[in-house]
Amino acid sequence: MASNSKRTVCPLQIPKITQFKIGICQLKVTTEKSANILKARELIQAAAGKGASLILLPEMWNCPCSTDMFAKFAEDFSDIDSAPSLLMLSEVASSLGVTIIGGSVPEKDAGQLYNTCCLFGPNGEFKAKHRKIHLFDMGKPLLGEVQFKESDYISAGKNPTVVDTDFGCIGIGICHDIRFPELAMLYSARGAQLICYPGAFNMSTGAALWELEQRTRAVDNQLYVASCSPSRDSAGSYAIWGHSTVVGPMGEIIATTGHDKTVLIVDVDYAAIQRTSSYRESFPLESQRRSDIYQFVDVLTESSNS
Amino acid sequence: MASNSKRTVCPLQIPKITQFKIGICQLKVTTEKSANILKARELIQAAAGKGASLILLPEMWNCPCSTDMFAKFAEDFSDIDSAPSLLMLSEVASSLGVTIIGGSVPEKDAGQLYNTCCLFGPNGEFKAKHRKIHLFDMGKPLLGEVQFKESDYISAGKNPTVVDTDFGCIGIGICHDIRFPELAMLYSARGAQLICYPGAFNMSTGAALWELEQRTRAVDNQLYVASCSPSRDSAGSYAIWGHSTVVGPMGEIIATTGHDKTVLIVDVDYAAIQRTSSYRESFPLESQRRSDIYQFVDVLTESSNS
Repeated sequence: MASNSKRTVCPLQIPKITQFKIGICQLKVTTEKSANILKARELIQAAAGKGASLILLPEMWNCPCSTDMFAKFAEDFSDIDSAPSLLMLSEVASSLGVTIIGGSVPEKDAGQLYNTCCLFGPNGEFKAKHRKIHLFDMGKPLLGEVQFKESDYISAGKNPTVVDTDFGCIGIGICHDIRFPELAMLYSARGAQLICYPGAFNMSTGAALWELEQRTRAVDNQLYVASCSPSRDSAGSYAIWGHSTVVGPMGEIIATTGHDKTVLIVDVDYAAIQRTSSYRESFPLESQRRSDIYQFVDVLTESSNS
Repeated sequence: MASNSKRTVCPLQIPKITQFKIGICQLKVTTEKSANILKARELIQAAAGKGASLILLPEMWNCPCSTDMFAKFAEDFSDIDSAPSLLMLSEVASSLGVTIIGGSVPEKDAGQLYNTCCLFGPNGEFKAKHRKIHLFDMGKPLLGEVQFKESDYISAGKNPTVVDTDFGCIGIGICHDIRFPELAMLYSARGAQLICYPGAFNMSTGAALWELEQRTRAVDNQLYVASCSPSRDSAGSYAIWGHSTVVGPMGEIIATTGHDKTVLIVDVDYAAIQRTSSYRESFPLESQRRSDIYQFVDVLTESSNS
């Protein structure tokens, strides 16, 4: 066998909790922010009531997916007490003792807007945020599709986000971030057991790509993937695909939804990633990579190590 | 928008032929090499008779997929006149005026065995060979599966293979090569319009991964993918999945087969990759890559440039 991988790969850590229920809240988003916050709280409570201890919200859960609304709905994260969406997430995480991956909301910071996911721990602590890295800029629109250029309104994040939680190492990507295999490869190399993708794919890319990309990121990186979309009848200028999903490490769909508002409760067991006679041991892809032919560089980790 | 890709990407060239029929020969492989050669010739002739000008054979088309048979069926490519499988491909390519991507056969060279694909042009010329880079070594076998460790018998290739043909730039991967997103990314960056994967997935990985991986490599790299498997009732120690397939640049399955012996004729039109209002223009993924966060290195190209 020729030379194998030399990329730096974190061994998988055994997290505090390896078996749990994830609650996926496929919200209907309206043009009224306070109503969205109220509804999100209700669905989080419903998910926790059904046993979910890790809860995922959709992309832009407090704001319609319309570029012209982002500024109006945006919150400044530097003072959480004046950021009602974040405040609710923190309070409900604490009161229910759950971890919440807060989909995304528009964030305002130093005159810029970002599409940002916030993660709150079970004591209500604001553990991490992920600013969407790959913005959804269509070139020429396909026939019948609405043009969409997110970067006219939103600035792109500069950092990948992997968070240590009670549920292991969780990577976060938002919507178009899923189209780039590199981000999932980076998360996998940093030790992620689960990647969460809040997203709001449209009808054509949704039908063509949403499930395919989730299954692929899971199986190519031998980890779990969970996604959460707003429901189709959400407000905004384009129709949303829906179909929030949880995929296991062999690329198998464990559970998925239609396009209506719903809460999906799914059992996750990390033993599927690592157990004897299971996937990583049967197919040790990492040791079979060919760094003599190709290499993948995690730029920020490399530069911080040098 | 933050900084974009700095990886070296070849612009797509317009090949001599942009619309053509590809013929996929899903052969039944027996334990008799001369019969396999005869049958392959017949199916190539059948494909050409139906209008195919580019023809793809399966992995190990002259030899059962059994590690213990590779040495017996292997040919030395240094003298094509004493390599009956190659000689047939060259002769039939020339007589029919077709390009043949010859699946794979066991190759012997300097005491080593390789799992090798040979590409012949329409004048019968031996244009390129690809030695399988990622060998299929299972770790612990999954329940109910036969252990398979290809590297006990076969040496791994050292080079990716992209070939300029009348049908554009074609990348070649063999079977387990498809599991590595990096190889397809490398081919895409080198300008491939089509990646051909001869393969012989087994029943469990076939059902779980074969279609998924083909669709993903196509859509993530915005190019065509074609695969060719032996039929299920081929000789050998494990049951073969079959299901040879052609996938378009949006990840759509254009045509696929079952598991029986068959010839699949599929129309390919590269306009689907590049045409106005189509995929690469609508979703300019290449310009959206984030080299400030991750980079992908084509090692052999970089070292030859330095």
